[in-house]
Amino acid sequence: MAKLSKKDYAQRLKSLEIELNKLHRWLQHTGKRLLVIVEGRDTAGKGGVISAISDCLNPRSCHVVALPKPSDRERGQWYFQRYVPHLPAAGEIVLFDRSWYNRAGVERVMGYCSDAEYKAFLKQVPVFEKMLVDDGMLVFKYWLSVDQQFQEERFAERAEDPLKRWKLSPIDLKSREKYKEYGDARDKMFSASHTKHAPWTVVDFNDQKIGRLTLIEDLLHRVKDKDVPMEPLDFPPLSHEPLREKFAGPVKPLKSVKV
Amino acid sequence: MAKLSKKDYAQRLKSLEIELNKLHRWLQHTGKRLLVIVEGRDTAGKGGVISAISDCLNPRSCHVVALPKPSDRERGQWYFQRYVPHLPAAGEIVLFDRSWYNRAGVERVMGYCSDAEYKAFLKQVPVFEKMLVDDGMLVFKYWLSVDQQFQEERFAERAEDPLKRWKLSPIDLKSREKYKEYGDARDKMFSASHTKHAPWTVVDFNDQKIGRLTLIEDLLHRVKDKDVPMEPLDFPPLSHEPLREKFAGPVKPLKSVKV
Amino acid sequence: MAKLSKKDYAQRLKSLEIELNKLHRWLQHTGKRLLVIVEGRDTAGKGGVISAISDCLNPRSCHVVALPKPSDRERGQWYFQRYVPHLPAAGEIVLFDRSWYNRAGVERVMGYCSDAEYKAFLKQVPVFEKMLVDDGMLVFKYWLSVDQQFQEERFAERAEDPLKRWKLSPIDLKSREKYKEYGDARDKMFSASHTKHAPWTVVDFNDQKIGRLTLIEDLLHRVKDKDVPMEPLDFPPLSHEPLREKFAGPVKPLKSVKV
Amino acid sequence: MAKLSKKDYAQRLKSLEIELNKLHRWLQHTGKRLLVIVEGRDTAGKGGVISAISDCLNPRSCHVVALPKPSDRERGQWYFQRYVPHLPAAGEIVLFDRSWYNRAGVERVMGYCSDAEYKAFLKQVPVFEKMLVDDGMLVFKYWLSVDQQFQEERFAERAEDPLKRWKLSPIDLKSREKYKEYGDARDKMFSASHTKHAPWTVVDFNDQKIGRLTLIEDLLHRVKDKDVPMEPLDFPPLSHEPLREKFAGPVKPLKSVKV
Repeated sequence: MAKLSKKDYAQRLKSLEIELNKLHRWLQHTGKRLLVIVEGRDTAGKGGVISAISDCLNPRSCHVVALPKPSDRERGQWYFQRYVPHLPAAGEIVLFDRSWYNRAGVERVMGYCSDAEYKAFLKQVPVFEKMLVDDGMLVFKYWLSVDQQFQEERFAERAEDPLKRWKLSPIDLKSREKYKEYGDARDKMFSASHTKHAPWTVVDFNDQKIGRLTLIEDLLHRVKDKDVPMEPLDFPPLSHEPLREKFAGPVKPLKSVKV
Repeated sequence: MAKLSKKDYAQRLKSLEIELNKLHRWLQHTGKRLLVIVEGRDTAGKGGVISAISDCLNPRSCHVVALPKPSDRERGQWYFQRYVPHLPAAGEIVLFDRSWYNRAGVERVMGYCSDAEYKAFLKQVPVFEKMLVDDGMLVFKYWLSVDQQFQEERFAERAEDPLKRWKLSPIDLKSREKYKEYGDARDKMFSASHTKHAPWTVVDFNDQKIGRLTLIEDLLHRVKDKDVPMEPLDFPPLSHEPLREKFAGPVKPLKSVKV
Repeated sequence: MAKLSKKDYAQRLKSLEIELNKLHRWLQHTGKRLLVIVEGRDTAGKGGVISAISDCLNPRSCHVVALPKPSDRERGQWYFQRYVPHLPAAGEIVLFDRSWYNRAGVERVMGYCSDAEYKAFLKQVPVFEKMLVDDGMLVFKYWLSVDQQFQEERFAERAEDPLKRWKLSPIDLKSREKYKEYGDARDKMFSASHTKHAPWTVVDFNDQKIGRLTLIEDLLHRVKDKDVPMEPLDFPPLSHEPLREKFAGPVKPLKSVKV
Repeated sequence: MAKLSKKDYAQRLKSLEIELNKLHRWLQHTGKRLLVIVEGRDTAGKGGVISAISDCLNPRSCHVVALPKPSDRERGQWYFQRYVPHLPAAGEIVLFDRSWYNRAGVERVMGYCSDAEYKAFLKQVPVFEKMLVDDGMLVFKYWLSVDQQFQEERFAERAEDPLKRWKLSPIDLKSREKYKEYGDARDKMFSASHTKHAPWTVVDFNDQKIGRLTLIEDLLHRVKDKDVPMEPLDFPPLSHEPLREKFAGPVKPLKSVKV
């Protein structure tokens, strides 16, 4: 597998980031909404690609949504109810780090939902998404794939690297023996929800850098003609010498770390 | 000004990230809550330091809050009301990218609030924060400083760099001629809200990398004895050869970008 | 038209209220959810019948939802989005005083939505409701009818009675000349949304007391076998003489109004 | 104890309702906010007086708030956090059926909160309320008193009347033997929270009709000069004979109940 150097990656990411900014400007100009659903195997790299996208955009109109477990009251509601308040408004991008598809993945494989709930979900999800798409929302769904060999490496890394340890839960470890079951569940999920109005796109994340670039490039290709001229800016010279910070009161800047 | 190499920065950031993860684990273990308020001049680097912190933590319990302009209905509510639902619950970190201090900064300088509203805010804010602190919430407030020379450079960069253009609004440009006024407003804000229970910390962000390290190091020093032993993990070898992704249906992985 | 005496009304209402309480107990016992949509002409009596129902039920699990005008941000969202958070959870009754059907009524007749939005709504609403019903939610939809003769009487009353004046808005008055248009809009709405899974029920509210009894009786008939035995209560005699209020501090009861 | 006839009660309530409507109009005209906290003994009649007020006002800007038990996540938040989103916006009336004072009443007496939480609450509540009042919110706090003799009668009634059974919980029954403790807890609550800015008003609800009139009259006296001229209404005669309902489609009015 060809590797991408850090430098090449950074360079290529940067030009995609410029395009992401154009996309965001176009969304705000047109009042359009974009929902990006990021699903995939544990360790595939969902969080990483989401950060790559959101870190270069205005956080006031680009939101990452990673919902915690439902409360008891939420468990007694319509399944989609707790997700709906987070859907994007005009001009907004929302990135779902996992989503309603939990029901067809981890909940199904680990037995956290009933058969009836599972079947109901598979029946409802294409209908629900069609409503959003018909309403004008852009809905892009990505599934990040990774072979178990790399997944195992990453699990091992997570177990040892204190920086990544939080990404590892007991459920993840139980899931290691269910790699195939997760794949089967995914295929069934695709059968039910890979629709014309909201198709799935699978991206190979065996190499995460390449995966990120591939996903973002694909996302950008889905919106054509998104050029919105930047509003001209009036940037006259300052009328005085640039000033320096002065602190009148007792609060003074902290001593900076030593270089 | 001594410069920090990219490599040194990355290395030093990494060891701080490990400590941030310890801190988060400690919060979850003890059920404590952490609110970090990040304020400061335009271009100082609020978004950057927030990403540096949040990118290494579990997004399900570390939230970045960057509220849009208030709605008409919100404008008719108690000033703090729209912020309160975003305060951290047990085990959570919340990072405010700008905050209720808008009223003492941009709103005051640009005349977006009345004198009475401004004075009421200065009176209420220490009381409000004391309630949170007395309730056991950790409340850390940072103000990022930058001399106008660097601010001007960054404004110019934002005007030209399509990646940063969204960070530049017409209000920012108007603010360029009000550097001193913003400083005066900040000093008054400090007089009113630099309290024993919730003091301000000013961090020099003339050099953003150094600023980030300084801020995060300070934040970490504020919580002592945050060691929580990691739960031991049972990580047995797989019972079979690692599997590879197989897609039974018509959805196949996208062609990756060329290296 | 036969009239109902106040006393007869009260008596008949009371026995319906007992049944409503049984229904609520059954919902809580089974974890079922009930959504009642109350639509109809201005002055028909939506608020009155909703109060008749909700006043006799536990307000902690029976909610009346009368949403104000959407905010600008809400206007840029999926049309149903602002209603969804108010849908009932397990054991709950929610009564909508007007609802998403605004779009097919007042918004259509008064021109507050575009043709495209109107058509999109008519297409989406049966699909949306089917999702709720398939999810196990009971969805009952009532349309309250009133002849213009009585509507005019009530408008006149509202204009004069200071107690009812708030029910009268300039839009209502403009609507007086559009009685027929509202009827036509309703018929089109019925064509689109009178479905097997969520049918409309029209109730004649020319006489409001009779209308209320008719609606509530119908609602009750829609749920069969809702008997849940009341849990036995242990209600032993007090172990001492009943006590009287004593106020140790300076706050004493207000002087009651004179009889 | 002098009794009030039903007719007298209705008449007197009606004139108060007219004044309540004036008050609401004044709130909307001035953009003021009104919070009414209704606390008191079990069976005192909190729900009844709240309905008496809210039933005559516009539900789009008069809300009754009766929160269910906190969720696990809410339990880990600042104690006041879950109440804050329900505070009134400009022009609104909010009626709290029980409130944050739960902590000083049932939670204290039944041991549902720790000593530390209880003390923290007593310390915070006057400060918290002062912030609201200083912000311009009208905050009226009522405590409904009832002698145990009447309370016992009402408990017995609730145990037998299927219409009132939902008002009776096992906790209520346990509370019967704690009448004195509840009184003591109330006195301590008053000591801590009967402040100049947000005083308590005790109303005798041994006779509920008289209690309601007394409370509403007091509430109305707290706002002077609330006259806002009603906007004149143009109410021209209809340009045609009043029309009758006609249903073009298959949905026809339900057969009304027999008189």
